[in-house]
Amino acid sequence: MTDTSSRPRAVVLLSGGLDSATVLAVALRDGFDVAALSVRYGQRHVAELDAAARIAQRMGVSRHEIVDLDLRAFGGSALTADIPVPKDRADDAIGSGIPVTYVPARNTVFLALALAFAESLGAADIFIGVNALDYSGYPDCRPAFIEAFERLANLATKAGVDGTSRFAIHAPLLHLSKAGIIALGLSLGVDYGDTCSCYDPLVTGEACGHCDACLLRLRGFEAAGVRDPIAYAASSR
Amino acid sequence: MTDTSSRPRAVVLLSGGLDSATVLAVALRDGFDVAALSVRYGQRHVAELDAAARIAQRMGVSRHEIVDLDLRAFGGSALTADIPVPKDRADDAIGSGIPVTYVPARNTVFLALALAFAESLGAADIFIGVNALDYSGYPDCRPAFIEAFERLANLATKAGVDGTSRFAIHAPLLHLSKAGIIALGLSLGVDYGDTCSCYDPLVTGEACGHCDACLLRLRGFEAAGVRDPIAYAASSR
Repeated sequence: MTDTSSRPRAVVLLSGGLDSATVLAVALRDGFDVAALSVRYGQRHVAELDAAARIAQRMGVSRHEIVDLDLRAFGGSALTADIPVPKDRADDAIGSGIPVTYVPARNTVFLALALAFAESLGAADIFIGVNALDYSGYPDCRPAFIEAFERLANLATKAGVDGTSRFAIHAPLLHLSKAGIIALGLSLGVDYGDTCSCYDPLVTGEACGHCDACLLRLRGFEAAGVRDPIAYAASSR
Repeated sequence: MTDTSSRPRAVVLLSGGLDSATVLAVALRDGFDVAALSVRYGQRHVAELDAAARIAQRMGVSRHEIVDLDLRAFGGSALTADIPVPKDRADDAIGSGIPVTYVPARNTVFLALALAFAESLGAADIFIGVNALDYSGYPDCRPAFIEAFERLANLATKAGVDGTSRFAIHAPLLHLSKAGIIALGLSLGVDYGDTCSCYDPLVTGEACGHCDACLLRLRGFEAAGVRDPIAYAASSR
């Protein structure tokens, strides 16, 4: 067992996808004792939680919590409701506008949960895997959102008020392309075979190869000049 | 059935306590079509959720959602963990410092959920019952926190970005004393017999009469010159 006593603690939001696995590797590289947090929010691609558990165990976090919070009660997204996930969209369509896979206020909810977990643990650092590709489409992935949350965190908490912690929200992928993220993760030893990105995987576990998440991922690996190690449905090739 | 089509929608955070029942009455007075949101977060005083359901039905909301989110996983509070609830504290003790009943980042989490619900409903207004008595002790009840959350909400959401909504966080009790809140609620027809404030109620449902919430409530009714209609444990009188 690794001695974690001397290392500062951090909370990493771990979805089980490519981005959050890379962020976890960055937090570990930076010397943090990591508690990973995943959320079972009614996502149709619940396989990502198995991926999160594999990644957490393989990469060596000191704790992994999966919190249940059923966002289906609110509706309004293709990721949680019975709305078809868009397939085979062109690059310019993926990069413009807010997609139906947007889950209302999801990152606000996830960061709020990470803040509650961090304050309970005495951790002052929170890591989230939002990036430039996301923030073209999702409002709660933009740099201004991350800054506003950091400000809120320091007003919201006992630790922020009595000065025992000064919360920092780290988004180390913010300005990276998908290929840049993959190159960073590979340099830190991430096994992307453990990750799951697809919004609409087959029951057998293969990624569909056609949703926005699969398309961005496949193009990222292509641009990085590396083969994606996960399995895709036969019809996707 | 009331015609709700012409009224703007609002989300009211409804705990089932005296403050949130009053806030609900304010939102209804102001002409909103109200969706109430309660959270089953592992609180020991879960009786407040029955109170919330009674209040929601009695006061005429168009929808009431109770969301499950088990904050016990994070620990750290007398309201969710096996830590004794303080009893019979003096006024100056209640008014100073952050109590053990503080739940880490609770209002950040609750407002984030309210924002997700509001965005799904197309509502731009969110009501929360924080007040001056709370913000002497709880950091996430202070005016600066509410303002920071409003700013975040408008960066976090599709509705805030495309201009279809401009979110407002309403905290109409912010500068009221408990007696002032009670006077306001009575003027709006709130039946405080439906509400539940105690942090540590008996299994039979009576309020303990000794926790901070009971003491503040009892003093509030006394200062307002009104009898509190709820039942207290015999030992509390």
